[in-house]
Amino acid sequence: MFWRSVYSDKRGRVKDLSLIAPFTKRTHTCGALTAAHVGARVVLTGWLLFERKISKAMSFFSIRDSSGTIQLVVLRNEVTASRLSALSEVPVESTVQIEGIVRMRPENARRHESTGDIEVEVHTFTLLNSADVKMPFVPSDNQLPSEDFRSRYRSLDLRRPALSDNLRKRSKVARIVRDVLYEQEFLEVETPILLTSTPEGAREFLVPTRITQNSNGASTREPQFYALPQSPQQPKQLLICSGAVDRYFQLAKCFRDEDGRNDRQPEFTQVDLEMAFVSWGQALESSTVGSDQWRIGGSEVRDVVENIIRKVWLEMEDVTLPGRFEVMTYHEAMTRYGSDKPDTRFGLEERITLTEDNESSWLLGSRTVCEGIQPVSKIQALEINETLRLNVGDTVYLAARSKIPEGGSTHLGRLRLQLSAAAHARHDCTWTQEPHFLWITEFPLFTRADKEKNLLAQGRWSSTHHPFTAPMWEDIEAMYNGCLESVRGQHYDLVLNGVEIGGGSVRVHDPEMQEYIFSQILQLSELEKGSFNHLLDALKYGAPPHGGIALGFDRLMTILCKAKSIRDVIAFPKTSVGTDLLFKGPAPVDKSVLYQYGIQPCT
Amino acid sequence: MFWRSVYSDKRGRVKDLSLIAPFTKRTHTCGALTAAHVGARVVLTGWLLFERKISKAMSFFSIRDSSGTIQLVVLRNEVTASRLSALSEVPVESTVQIEGIVRMRPENARRHESTGDIEVEVHTFTLLNSADVKMPFVPSDNQLPSEDFRSRYRSLDLRRPALSDNLRKRSKVARIVRDVLYEQEFLEVETPILLTSTPEGAREFLVPTRITQNSNGASTREPQFYALPQSPQQPKQLLICSGAVDRYFQLAKCFRDEDGRNDRQPEFTQVDLEMAFVSWGQALESSTVGSDQWRIGGSEVRDVVENIIRKVWLEMEDVTLPGRFEVMTYHEAMTRYGSDKPDTRFGLEERITLTEDNESSWLLGSRTVCEGIQPVSKIQALEINETLRLNVGDTVYLAARSKIPEGGSTHLGRLRLQLSAAAHARHDCTWTQEPHFLWITEFPLFTRADKEKNLLAQGRWSSTHHPFTAPMWEDIEAMYNGCLESVRGQHYDLVLNGVEIGGGSVRVHDPEMQEYIFSQILQLSELEKGSFNHLLDALKYGAPPHGGIALGFDRLMTILCKAKSIRDVIAFPKTSVGTDLLFKGPAPVDKSVLYQYGIQPCT
Repeated sequence: MFWRSVYSDKRGRVKDLSLIAPFTKRTHTCGALTAAHVGARVVLTGWLLFERKISKAMSFFSIRDSSGTIQLVVLRNEVTASRLSALSEVPVESTVQIEGIVRMRPENARRHESTGDIEVEVHTFTLLNSADVKMPFVPSDNQLPSEDFRSRYRSLDLRRPALSDNLRKRSKVARIVRDVLYEQEFLEVETPILLTSTPEGAREFLVPTRITQNSNGASTREPQFYALPQSPQQPKQLLICSGAVDRYFQLAKCFRDEDGRNDRQPEFTQVDLEMAFVSWGQALESSTVGSDQWRIGGSEVRDVVENIIRKVWLEMEDVTLPGRFEVMTYHEAMTRYGSDKPDTRFGLEERITLTEDNESSWLLGSRTVCEGIQPVSKIQALEINETLRLNVGDTVYLAARSKIPEGGSTHLGRLRLQLSAAAHARHDCTWTQEPHFLWITEFPLFTRADKEKNLLAQGRWSSTHHPFTAPMWEDIEAMYNGCLESVRGQHYDLVLNGVEIGGGSVRVHDPEMQEYIFSQILQLSELEKGSFNHLLDALKYGAPPHGGIALGFDRLMTILCKAKSIRDVIAFPKTSVGTDLLFKGPAPVDKSVLYQYGIQPCT
Repeated sequence: MFWRSVYSDKRGRVKDLSLIAPFTKRTHTCGALTAAHVGARVVLTGWLLFERKISKAMSFFSIRDSSGTIQLVVLRNEVTASRLSALSEVPVESTVQIEGIVRMRPENARRHESTGDIEVEVHTFTLLNSADVKMPFVPSDNQLPSEDFRSRYRSLDLRRPALSDNLRKRSKVARIVRDVLYEQEFLEVETPILLTSTPEGAREFLVPTRITQNSNGASTREPQFYALPQSPQQPKQLLICSGAVDRYFQLAKCFRDEDGRNDRQPEFTQVDLEMAFVSWGQALESSTVGSDQWRIGGSEVRDVVENIIRKVWLEMEDVTLPGRFEVMTYHEAMTRYGSDKPDTRFGLEERITLTEDNESSWLLGSRTVCEGIQPVSKIQALEINETLRLNVGDTVYLAARSKIPEGGSTHLGRLRLQLSAAAHARHDCTWTQEPHFLWITEFPLFTRADKEKNLLAQGRWSSTHHPFTAPMWEDIEAMYNGCLESVRGQHYDLVLNGVEIGGGSVRVHDPEMQEYIFSQILQLSELEKGSFNHLLDALKYGAPPHGGIALGFDRLMTILCKAKSIRDVIAFPKTSVGTDLLFKGPAPVDKSVLYQYGIQPCT
């Protein structure tokens, strides 16, 4: 069976035609076999692993496919030796097809693992494809080379169950997410990847075209570009405004041309959804103050997302999450935890709020945390000890911040995380295994604190999230009065164990308010506003109130797979600087090709 | 209820806060109401349609959401007039929330349509968003402006049920496809959109990057580019070669930078799948010659695709397709129908094959079809009449072609389609309603006939489909002997009513054969071969035999939606030249932005 047919090619090399000859269907995948199959004649295909030679007459091998591994027994006697001896010469990691009989292992050889009770006695085999004897590394080895090295041979690296299990989980979670959404009457709609540049947020990737007319049909000699979307924000809003779709979702591809950051990818996937006619729901009537207070619109979005997450955690983790996730305002999160995405698995909350009375004596005398934490003077110490009822050995951290919290975290917030991580590393504390989901709401709608956004804002106010987020109803008057720092948005972030896994908002659906925000608050130029014209138009045609959210699917999968890096849950990831070591990208392009797009390299 | 709250903004304009004030959840969607709800108090949201005023005291309106339309009755008496009269002032296509009671229509007013038995008597209403009184067009009008005009206001155009129904169907079919594949243990795996340029097939879109190092980590000043994939062909093969995934699928985004062609889009979606360890299946043993002869590998791919299509047609069209789709070789299709994607809903087959005996007298004397069909001489006519047993009034078409068929169609094949279309237009014949699915197999593996491909091939042989398609087992010897014109590939196309809706193949999995095809047959230069190195590598690590297929999802949906254009089944399509009239793309980009990518406009 080994050399089924041999043929010599043009250059006189011997070609082994068995490699491409017709062969029969496998009867089972390796992992599907159980003790119930004992006695059955099976045909298996897979990758051959190392031989363990027991004697001249007997060897064990393993054969693995993506479903699992099963032990092979090769017994060599006068009849079988001729057709089975060649199996020992097959390089490890080659693909083979074997035919044999399933049998129970001797009792002392059984293992507590899938297929651990059984083995297959090989009758015949066919070599399907011989692995190179000089492979860059052997994926079943315990000793593995560096991540960068393995990335160059990703198709070999993916053979490791550590990675292939992640792909399996990712597919399964995508299915769960889709099923929950379909059951709630969402439609999946594909939005364009080739879009047009807009002045919001981060940098976009451009795509040169050979098109020689602009969108008004006029011919042009200037090079024309599409842009890859950072998110389908505008298409999805237009879709909902159209009324064609009441509930939209998409596992959407997004692109961000950021300078290399660890654990970010230039392309990523988000569970993107948007709903028409979102409302305030029940919370409005029973306005008891508490941690479950959702005082904004979009309650339907909250319900749907909690349903998705609950189903995913139940199916993947066997964990029943609470019927409602906690809700905390931005103000409370910043005041108690010094973070807009607090990790609530542990305490270490801020204990005192400084008032004007104690401010001068306590804080102004000490240096800021920026300069490192400094000991305070003896007199200050006494006062602090007394107020906080401190004991010997206690440590106090103090830091200054502006009265109205700004941005994503405070000095003390960051310190809190460092202390917790240090304690955890020293095994002084263990974090709870239970996932802590938390909604943060009522973010400031406008900001001047975001340095990244200032690149575009150039000193003007910018939207904390994006310019389509609606203000809280209670703050509309303040917004029109110009008290921008006090305007809270109908924005919500979903946080898991201190990691933001999604964010969304109720959108502005009043065209005049949207125009006011663009022109009067963000002070966009006519050119900048131009790229939002289609949205302003759509709002004028009877757009429904609407809201949505986007969940970071790669980050969610990283958490679910307990992976160290986002790259471990992506089949073909890029490095942190954006290069692709497998496909050797990006790459230079011939000048003559660029010329067709009306562009050339800078000189 | 109409003017819930009024507020005057900075510039003194009166703002209607009811537009953004909290409002309650709807209780039902419009289309969900039935006679079973009679007597229920309901809250509905949707778009208000034209008023039909019956009297001072009574009006009908309709309200529509994406689920359907329901009739509203407004009765004005002393109590209700004050709160309901304003409804007549609300512009058509505005979004409103209404509260009322469901009641049966009078018997003579019932309609045989969904919600046709009932109506809702309105008690109160809230205007959610007022539509502009000057809309570019009203989607519920019978008279619509041109497609180009409507494209500029796509979010209004999508409100028409003709388009929104297509989006609903598309989402449903995507779900059916995924469910069938998940049930057959496929994993959905996302492959990169930002890939690297390869020299196969059509032109790729490029994406400039700001990356200043190449994939070897060396720093470079030359501009670097990603390329958008024409299909995930290489990633999916690498995935299967890795062994991580036994059965892969993806509803994959693909990109092709073609010169504008009607009914093609620069970005499109395909149902992309690939399977490890594909085999010849049962057909090999029972080698009866017939129309169901699948004489190549990849029988598992055939099974899966037929399962998908059968399920889709059953669910969407209520049609039970045959348990097996017909199979025809390329040779048979070209000989009988003069087409590699024959429409087998009607006959008009080629009746005679010319032999060397009759060739000189029949054909060489007549002009070719290229020059138009000419009458033949009297002597020829007699001979033809006799052989074909023609009657007065019969018409005969003759055309010359090369002995071994080449390319996609013959002169007679195209004529056959024209005749059929003409007969159909004249109502001389009607095509069967039954869909005719057909597999075409055993294509020539290499070609010189494809003019488009010759751009890259430059006179060399090129692959009819792509260079990874395996030859038929029987023709391997001929391939190594250089008889390239007679080598048939393990390629299969799925044809529906004369339209190709998918194509795939069993791939080469022997690294030496793949190398031989690249170097000896296609005569790729080292540079051209370089972009396939990762695939050659992967084949060396024990790649399994594998095969797959890609189905054109947009085209499939166009057929299922009985749409005239592919643009009618895409939420936000581009024009045939690739421009986007809604998002106004592509667009020029500022020189300073291009500079960051190391490029500049040509001078």
